[in-house]
Amino acid sequence: MMNKYRLMSPGPTPIPPEVSAAGALPIIHHRTPEFGEVFTRVNENLKRVFLTENDIFTYAASGTGAFEGAVQNLFSPGDKVLVVNNGNFGNRWVKMSQAFGLEVTELKYDWGQKADNDEVAEALSREPGIKAAMCTLSETSTGTVNDIEGFAKATENVLTIVDAVSGLGACTLRTDDWGVDVVVAGSQKALMTPPGLGMVSVNERAWKAHEDSRMPRYYFDWTAARKAYAKMPPQTPWTPAVSVIIQLDIALKQIIDEGIENVFERHTLLGRASREGIKGMGLSLFGPDEDLNSAVTAAWVPEGVDGKQLVRAMFQEHGIQVAGGQADMEGRIFRIGHCGYFDSYDIISTIAAAELALEGLGHPVELGKGVGAAQRVFARSGVTA
Amino acid sequence: MMNKYRLMSPGPTPIPPEVSAAGALPIIHHRTPEFGEVFTRVNENLKRVFLTENDIFTYAASGTGAFEGAVQNLFSPGDKVLVVNNGNFGNRWVKMSQAFGLEVTELKYDWGQKADNDEVAEALSREPGIKAAMCTLSETSTGTVNDIEGFAKATENVLTIVDAVSGLGACTLRTDDWGVDVVVAGSQKALMTPPGLGMVSVNERAWKAHEDSRMPRYYFDWTAARKAYAKMPPQTPWTPAVSVIIQLDIALKQIIDEGIENVFERHTLLGRASREGIKGMGLSLFGPDEDLNSAVTAAWVPEGVDGKQLVRAMFQEHGIQVAGGQADMEGRIFRIGHCGYFDSYDIISTIAAAELALEGLGHPVELGKGVGAAQRVFARSGVTA
Repeated sequence: MMNKYRLMSPGPTPIPPEVSAAGALPIIHHRTPEFGEVFTRVNENLKRVFLTENDIFTYAASGTGAFEGAVQNLFSPGDKVLVVNNGNFGNRWVKMSQAFGLEVTELKYDWGQKADNDEVAEALSREPGIKAAMCTLSETSTGTVNDIEGFAKATENVLTIVDAVSGLGACTLRTDDWGVDVVVAGSQKALMTPPGLGMVSVNERAWKAHEDSRMPRYYFDWTAARKAYAKMPPQTPWTPAVSVIIQLDIALKQIIDEGIENVFERHTLLGRASREGIKGMGLSLFGPDEDLNSAVTAAWVPEGVDGKQLVRAMFQEHGIQVAGGQADMEGRIFRIGHCGYFDSYDIISTIAAAELALEGLGHPVELGKGVGAAQRVFARSGVTA
Repeated sequence: MMNKYRLMSPGPTPIPPEVSAAGALPIIHHRTPEFGEVFTRVNENLKRVFLTENDIFTYAASGTGAFEGAVQNLFSPGDKVLVVNNGNFGNRWVKMSQAFGLEVTELKYDWGQKADNDEVAEALSREPGIKAAMCTLSETSTGTVNDIEGFAKATENVLTIVDAVSGLGACTLRTDDWGVDVVVAGSQKALMTPPGLGMVSVNERAWKAHEDSRMPRYYFDWTAARKAYAKMPPQTPWTPAVSVIIQLDIALKQIIDEGIENVFERHTLLGRASREGIKGMGLSLFGPDEDLNSAVTAAWVPEGVDGKQLVRAMFQEHGIQVAGGQADMEGRIFRIGHCGYFDSYDIISTIAAAELALEGLGHPVELGKGVGAAQRVFARSGVTA
């Protein structure tokens, strides 16, 4: 039996056919009016997705690279920062900050838990020299979405830096309304574009911190980027990933056409249906069962089932690529990605495949029960995909 | 009259249709056996193009990013380096090295001149504390190809670092035979792939220097890369630019099929025909008139002609995108790129368009004279493209 390939991982994510097709266009030169037109539109549309008037720079890099740029551009060795660590990515920012000689106050939570913003405020008041606080919007490793509006309030006296790589364009993030100074994103998640681009938004307060920063940098230097972007048409300081930017242009247009608020609402349904589907088939959610727009749904692998085998079976026998757990959670949880180019039938198929794969592995499942729960979410929301 | 778009710039460069088409394939997950198979082959084939057994790491970054990685991974602030600066890119490595707190001995040459390796050896013996020497293989800004075999000999007592971004796969570079410790390359030149990937090769001596290096780094950290590459199948530490790597796989197969020595030879003919075409139409070459495999041919814009207008006319009226001069050479020279996916008729068309555009701008040209000179190069080489 043929199985189509269905990418249901939390990143990279599937891309719309129009975005795929744009990947096959001939390469054009980046210092031309033709590319300038594309790049100008990309920069404007990114602002409409970041919900900001701030500068946004796009790098040939993964989100990790763009995040490193924020560390290099905002700080000097020895600066104090607070980092929320409630998953693999929070953990990465702790390590990265330490690698750059920052003094890190780590606020650590069990995987799956949300950051407690009262504790964030408390930690900041205990340590008055802290310059900035970092938090992840959507922890890809667990599916947990942190309350960034609350985080921005709790950290209003310091720089607020948000890793929105896996959340931007899926989970609500109102950069300017909430006063988030620096937001880092990537092309390969809800922006429905192949991996290869990292973005960062920079507000006035961040620019002031940048002026004082003495960290060595070159490739990710914001001053170099600002100078190149100020040209007409805007340019990048180094050769941009032309083909991926041209694909991003198409993807952003689709997001704008759908409407960013509708995109958020769609992700609320995708998350709700995934959670109901998981519970409906008798599994337990990993992380809080909150009804918000999320990018990833993580579930415990049931007792007696090998999680790696489950992920493999879903892929090899059903063509559906979900993700396993990272680090300590390897083999213990599985993750369904639904940030970006996903509709109701992607979720329904994935829940159906999970049911079938579990049955195949000898775990008792009533076929269709999880699927039905997911269907009801879509049917009762007035959304027919 | 319809004009097809012909990208004749020194980067990004046109890509083969098979590489284009691969850009439209669905995105696959990067931590799967399917991607592992592609990535394993890419890593092996890169070694056959770098002509090395050394480790090669591929980053989501431009060549500038990969070069920054070399600076971060090899040095500590205050280390002394020698940098050859005979163009825009040599100049960039001077600035980058200084940005990272290195003490730079700059060996500066007029644009278009080649580095003098006797002077390199002399400079190193005058300054015994120098740890490394950097040189560009092909200066994209001028078309000049430096003698890297001689440079590696002159610098054999220190680390030899070569920027081969615009040269690798066009200009001969025998990494292991010549003993080049670190080679940096990019996807968007002779590797016939869209921009977005930067590579670096690292030999044993460079690994030893890496152990002593105290420069802060994370995204480009070689130790992190080595750890990820050691997995089975090999991985990257952060999300790779999946679609561009899949395209690189196709491009590398084509290079291997043609044979790297044949690729070098083809570039000898492309360079020779470009130079003869330029001289044939009565223009002067910018840079040395040497018969070697080159990536770019640069020519002086004749007296009385505006170089920017010439480049614009070639594009707007003929569809042929050559590049103008950079920095001080803006408007004074134009550059024909021929590194990567180029054949004889690309050169013939470009020379023809240059003749026609010059005539259109009121400069006296005998149509076909430059073209004839280029044709003779191909006809007399036994290569019929």
